[in-house]
Amino acid sequence: MPAMADETLFQLLHTQVVAAAYGAGRGSGDEGLRAGLTVLEGMGFRVGQGLAERLPQGALAFREELDTIKFLCRDLWGAVFGKQTDNLRTNHQGTYILQDNNFPFLTQMAWGQQYLEEAPKVLGEQFLAFTCGLLRGTLSSLGIESSVTASVTSLPACKFQVVIQKA
Amino acid sequence: MPAMADETLFQLLHTQVVAAAYGAGRGSGDEGLRAGLTVLEGMGFRVGQGLAERLPQGALAFREELDTIKFLCRDLWGAVFGKQTDNLRTNHQGTYILQDNNFPFLTQMAWGQQYLEEAPKVLGEQFLAFTCGLLRGTLSSLGIESSVTASVTSLPACKFQVVIQKA
Repeated sequence: MPAMADETLFQLLHTQVVAAAYGAGRGSGDEGLRAGLTVLEGMGFRVGQGLAERLPQGALAFREELDTIKFLCRDLWGAVFGKQTDNLRTNHQGTYILQDNNFPFLTQMAWGQQYLEEAPKVLGEQFLAFTCGLLRGTLSSLGIESSVTASVTSLPACKFQVVIQKA
Repeated sequence: MPAMADETLFQLLHTQVVAAAYGAGRGSGDEGLRAGLTVLEGMGFRVGQGLAERLPQGALAFREELDTIKFLCRDLWGAVFGKQTDNLRTNHQGTYILQDNNFPFLTQMAWGQQYLEEAPKVLGEQFLAFTCGLLRGTLSSLGIESSVTASVTSLPACKFQVVIQKA
């Protein structure tokens, strides 16, 4: 099955996870939406933790916070999406913006006609929540607590904002 | 991140999916269990469909039903689990038994202490339901309707029974 990249498998499953998080029995409206986001973010967090725990010991003794963030942009993105983020900005005060101009989950989402009638903002939240958790969980396992939010800039581009929580 | 195989990523997400399917708000007891299985099987079905739809056109013009099943054992298993099934048996009347002596989802499950107190049968159903759907969905997209069930023989070994529905 050479045409079935493992990223495809992961992305197909992610799509189903998003659909299930908003499926029947989860309620609707704002409350159902928030519950779905919480579930997705939590799943991403634990997957991020799992990935970080499987890293070779000693490979991640970053001295600088910025090095850890660069690791996310390059290595985490590489492992999960098969590429790097397109841009990284920081205010040098613990806030980092990771930009992806062609985010795979959004590219895929755009193919799914069932979603096209919903508002881009809601869509974006649904398809970015898992990855927010993924970033937060990976960072947490590397000893850095953070809050991560995301927004769609212009489909399929998006940015993730990581705010480090100072001890 | 060379140590992060993509299979790992997929398996980590699968674990979270199973946990979410049985998490808070889904009810408990037999009814909750059945609902969880239905959700997982349905997700597997749609992922299987998605994988099959991404195959190169013409690559799957199998003449014999058995060839299609062998494709599952070799190529589908390879794409999803990075190996082949260990054994395939058939009664030559449309029933096939795919055996895996070290099924990755069960290996991983055995590591999770939170599950150790539950009965192996229930565990097995929870961790095999997605893959039952995966087989059924892939077959469906290849033009073969089937029913697929699975059972744990002895952890982490299991077998999947595919019964082809004759037209």
